[in-house]
Amino acid sequence: MAAWGQRLAGVRGVLLDVSGVLFDGAEGSGVPIAGSVEAVARLKRSRLKVRFCTNESQKSLGDLVRLLQQLGFDISEGEVTAPAPATCLILKERGLRPYLLIHDGIRSEFDQIDTSNPNCVVIADAGESFSYQNMNKAFQVLMELENPVLISLGKGRYYKETSGLMLDVGAYVKALEYACGIEAEVVGKPSPEYFKSALQEMGLEAHQAQ
Amino acid sequence: MAAWGQRLAGVRGVLLDVSGVLFDGAEGSGVPIAGSVEAVARLKRSRLKVRFCTNESQKSLGDLVRLLQQLGFDISEGEVTAPAPATCLILKERGLRPYLLIHDGIRSEFDQIDTSNPNCVVIADAGESFSYQNMNKAFQVLMELENPVLISLGKGRYYKETSGLMLDVGAYVKALEYACGIEAEVVGKPSPEYFKSALQEMGLEAHQAQ
Repeated sequence: MAAWGQRLAGVRGVLLDVSGVLFDGAEGSGVPIAGSVEAVARLKRSRLKVRFCTNESQKSLGDLVRLLQQLGFDISEGEVTAPAPATCLILKERGLRPYLLIHDGIRSEFDQIDTSNPNCVVIADAGESFSYQNMNKAFQVLMELENPVLISLGKGRYYKETSGLMLDVGAYVKALEYACGIEAEVVGKPSPEYFKSALQEMGLEAHQAQ
Repeated sequence: MAAWGQRLAGVRGVLLDVSGVLFDGAEGSGVPIAGSVEAVARLKRSRLKVRFCTNESQKSLGDLVRLLQQLGFDISEGEVTAPAPATCLILKERGLRPYLLIHDGIRSEFDQIDTSNPNCVVIADAGESFSYQNMNKAFQVLMELENPVLISLGKGRYYKETSGLMLDVGAYVKALEYACGIEAEVVGKPSPEYFKSALQEMGLEAHQAQ
C-alpha cells in the first residue's frame, strides 16, 4: 500500500478508458463491468480530476454518453475525448476530403465534412460495413492518390463484446497498409498526441495523471 | 541479344504465371493479354518444357483451365500447379480440419476435407465472401486454438481485373496476422516450396527453368 501511495503522490487527475473497462458492449447496448459505476462515482467525489478517453468509433459521442448514462454512469459529453471529433479537426486543418470507411452509427459526426472527390481515407471500427466492396473502394481511392493519406480512428486488434471477441479496426488498417504499401496515421490511443489532447482538456501535465 | 541468349543457355523449361500475365480476369470471365495465346503456342512448339504456376484461388482448377481453353490457350489441368490441391495435401498430412474462408468458386476443391470442429483456418482470395462476419469467424477460430494455424493460398497485395485493381488475399492475411499475433503459412507463390513442387512436376532443377 505504501508503494501505491507513493505512486499516486502528485497525481491530480485520472484518465479512464471506456469500452472493455467501464462496460462491455453488445449489439446496440452493453453491460457495466462489476464495480465500475461505483468506481467512477467515488473518483468524482474525490479531489481528482476525471476524464474519459475512448477509441469508440461505432457510436457518435452523443450516443455513447447516453448509453453510459443509461447504464448508471455519471458522465457528460464534455468529459469525453473521442477520436471522431479529433479527426474532423485534422480533416478541416489539412483540407482533406475523406472516403469514410466507418460504421453508420458514427456517420453523423462527419456531417460537416466535404466527402466529394476524396483525397484521403478515414477508417474506423466499421463492423459489418467492412465488406469487401467497401474495403476495395478505400483501397482504390488510396491507390489513385499521389500521396495516399490513411487516417485510422484507433488501431486496436480486437475488443470484447458480451458475445465474444470481435475484430477491431487495426486489423483492417493493416490490410490497407499492406495492400497500398503505406502507413496509417492513428487518431486515438495509443497515439501520444491523443493522450496529450485529453490531458490539455483537463489542464494537467502527463506526470500529474494516471 | 547475345546476353539474352547466354541467359537462356541451359534452360530446359519455362514456368508461366497465369492471372495478369496470360489473361486479365473479369466477373466470371476474362480477356487474353495481347500476344499471350500465340506466345504459349510458340513455347509449346519449342524444345522447352512448359508448366503453368498460378495462385488463382477464386476458381477451381477445372474452371480455370476451361476458361483458359475458351480464351484460346493450349492448356490442360495436368500442366497447372495450383494452390488448392497443394493445400489439400498439407491438410491431410497434418490432420488439419479447416475453417474455409474462401470463394464459393473453389469450395469443390475441398469436398474431401473434414471441416468439422476446425483446428486451423484456410484463407484464399474470397472476394465478396470477405465479409466482416466471415473474417470474425476465422479470427475467433484462431483465437480459440492453443497453436493457431493459418494457411494462406498466396499472399498477393492486389490483382488487376478489367474493372480495375482488386484487393487480394494478402491484405486479409495481414489483418488476421495482426489481430491474432501470428504468422501465416503461405501455399503458393512466392513460397520457394511451391516453385520447387512445380519444378519437380516438370522433372527440372531450378537452374534449368525460367
